[in-house]
Amino acid sequence: MQNISITAPKGFMASGVSCGLKKDGNPDLALVYSETPAHYAGIYTTNLVKGHSLQRVIDIEKHKDTTHGVIINSGNANACVGSSGYQAANEMAAAAADCLQISSNDLLTCSTGVIGHPLPVEKIRKAAPDLTKGLSDSEKAGHAAMKAIMTTDLLPKEAVQMVSINKKDVTVAGMAKGSGMIHPRLATMISIVTTDVSMEGVLLKKALKEAAEISFHRITVDGDTSVCDTLLILANGASGVRIEKEDSPEYLIFLEALKNICLILAKKMAADGEGASKLIDVQVKRAATTADAYHILLAICRSPLCKTAFFGEDANWGRILTAAGYSGASFDPDKVDIYIGDLLVCQSGSGRPFDEKKAKEIMSAPEFSITVDLHGGNFSDHMWTCDFSYGYVKINGSYRS
Amino acid sequence: MQNISITAPKGFMASGVSCGLKKDGNPDLALVYSETPAHYAGIYTTNLVKGHSLQRVIDIEKHKDTTHGVIINSGNANACVGSSGYQAANEMAAAAADCLQISSNDLLTCSTGVIGHPLPVEKIRKAAPDLTKGLSDSEKAGHAAMKAIMTTDLLPKEAVQMVSINKKDVTVAGMAKGSGMIHPRLATMISIVTTDVSMEGVLLKKALKEAAEISFHRITVDGDTSVCDTLLILANGASGVRIEKEDSPEYLIFLEALKNICLILAKKMAADGEGASKLIDVQVKRAATTADAYHILLAICRSPLCKTAFFGEDANWGRILTAAGYSGASFDPDKVDIYIGDLLVCQSGSGRPFDEKKAKEIMSAPEFSITVDLHGGNFSDHMWTCDFSYGYVKINGSYRS
Repeated sequence: MQNISITAPKGFMASGVSCGLKKDGNPDLALVYSETPAHYAGIYTTNLVKGHSLQRVIDIEKHKDTTHGVIINSGNANACVGSSGYQAANEMAAAAADCLQISSNDLLTCSTGVIGHPLPVEKIRKAAPDLTKGLSDSEKAGHAAMKAIMTTDLLPKEAVQMVSINKKDVTVAGMAKGSGMIHPRLATMISIVTTDVSMEGVLLKKALKEAAEISFHRITVDGDTSVCDTLLILANGASGVRIEKEDSPEYLIFLEALKNICLILAKKMAADGEGASKLIDVQVKRAATTADAYHILLAICRSPLCKTAFFGEDANWGRILTAAGYSGASFDPDKVDIYIGDLLVCQSGSGRPFDEKKAKEIMSAPEFSITVDLHGGNFSDHMWTCDFSYGYVKINGSYRS
Repeated sequence: MQNISITAPKGFMASGVSCGLKKDGNPDLALVYSETPAHYAGIYTTNLVKGHSLQRVIDIEKHKDTTHGVIINSGNANACVGSSGYQAANEMAAAAADCLQISSNDLLTCSTGVIGHPLPVEKIRKAAPDLTKGLSDSEKAGHAAMKAIMTTDLLPKEAVQMVSINKKDVTVAGMAKGSGMIHPRLATMISIVTTDVSMEGVLLKKALKEAAEISFHRITVDGDTSVCDTLLILANGASGVRIEKEDSPEYLIFLEALKNICLILAKKMAADGEGASKLIDVQVKRAATTADAYHILLAICRSPLCKTAFFGEDANWGRILTAAGYSGASFDPDKVDIYIGDLLVCQSGSGRPFDEKKAKEIMSAPEFSITVDLHGGNFSDHMWTCDFSYGYVKINGSYRS
């Protein structure tokens, strides 16, 4: 049976424990570890404010191109606490590194949770021996790490794909957390991808960026982006496959697998949006420019009015056209067709009679599409979002307490 | 006793009736009328999509600088229905104009309600005799007009101010509807201001723009803007006061009164935001540029995470700093102080111990302020928003049905 977890690629181990950062006692400390040093690349939040654990990764990346792994805590973002936050990130890495007898600079750090509370790093230090002893390449250990990075997520998010490159098996695996504060560039997410291919940082980053563009940059939950967002890929070379050139067939096979993993994780994230009951694939077709298509997608996908209508299963296409209208994109409103699923509800910018029962039926599915056809050019794009429910308000009205 | 309605300025009458556009039989047709032609000026939605009744006003404005009044319907936006929509706007004006024995071009048109459904203009035609017969300068008639333009508004929004110019009484009055789809430039609102001063279109528009800048452009409910948004001012000169120059003392007195009326209406709109339980005055201080201050305000005021925390009375300042961080504004996160009311909760970008009980007490008031002090320059600005509650989701999950 296949291992569907972060430990699927050769040479990767993982572990997850409870160290007491979460009030409810749930797992909150994870480690992903490669026996041999792995090349790595990352994409980080564009927020001006950056969490201390993330800042440490950005600083390490400047002078070091390999790592043994990542230690991740949930329950505390280790952000906006002053200079002690950076030190806490260092201490967190050192606690695990000491047990593993490696340099603390060989462990990256991620933190997620509430902002502005000092990270009780002594809890992490106490848990470090158990965390490192628990390292295993079993699927169970991978799942344990996944559980330990969850915050308001209801569902774990894991994906694995195996491909054959030069007759050797190469595996790409990923795990992600993220449910609220989700928006392109980036979401409030931590996503770790492991692979046993061998690939250096620059090329790895190129592949990661390309994969993120069609996946993590195409989802939004609430238009908020956070201060800890991190997408990391670790490539340890244990498969014996080395990829050196970006135009090579090997690279393209790997890139497809990486894209697929990122897509699966991103879709799971949008579907598990805080309070979400549905996943909506919003499509914009025939825009005059790529920017027009993207701006319309952003406007629709973050409009509380569109998203509450999705929740209410109400085919209120007027709100969709309205959002397109204020998006800043240039188009001719009198040419716009709007579809809910495959049901045409607005033609040439005007309402037309449609089967309301059928529309409701389409929108009551856990996943459906909305298409806005501008008839104005050659550029198409899409984005996933979720509906806006009572659940979102409930979760976020009292997150801190 | 003073008349606190749109009919307070001399020479203005109003009326409001039910014509059957709203399913619940509530009033849905209003008329504001000046016996003598009034100069007018308007500010309209910036949405690319424009409602047909509004498009008609924009077209009339091009060649006509006076009007007798405005006919306004609620329950149907008369938007996105094709060429029949423009014709419906013309017929709606003609129906009332015929009864009043004036030219239909002497009546402006506003519509608000659901988008994409043909306006059943025969209902308006049938109600026109009652609507015009009901015209009166009484406060009751003003209130009736106000009630007839409400959609999801829970509270009427009216304001009157009297000032003395050259020893003569001048009155400025306003009424507004707007509750959801509220965002600067402009909100889903219809706001009519009447005044008995005499002032021509160009100067009137200048004053209106200046007043809107500090009022209607400083509120947001959900970041959505609509296709019918209209702010109109009618000045009929019945007070005998004529204002011709923008630097004159007369103009400045009038402008202050107009600003005040717009401020009151805008604040009422934000406080009555769909599902809102509180009004929050968000202040940004010491930004490097006006644009930085404004972008931070927009980000905080439209962030679902900030707004649900306001609803939950949770002093989650991390979300406020986060929103500032992704706003696109340039500032030094390590210099930022954040206050809830007058309680300092974040100092120099870091959390500090504060009295949670006091914070909760401040946030449980119907109105409170949030201050973000950037310590980075000389520009300050503010914006009103409301919280994001279960009520918003409820109202907007089923608006059309």
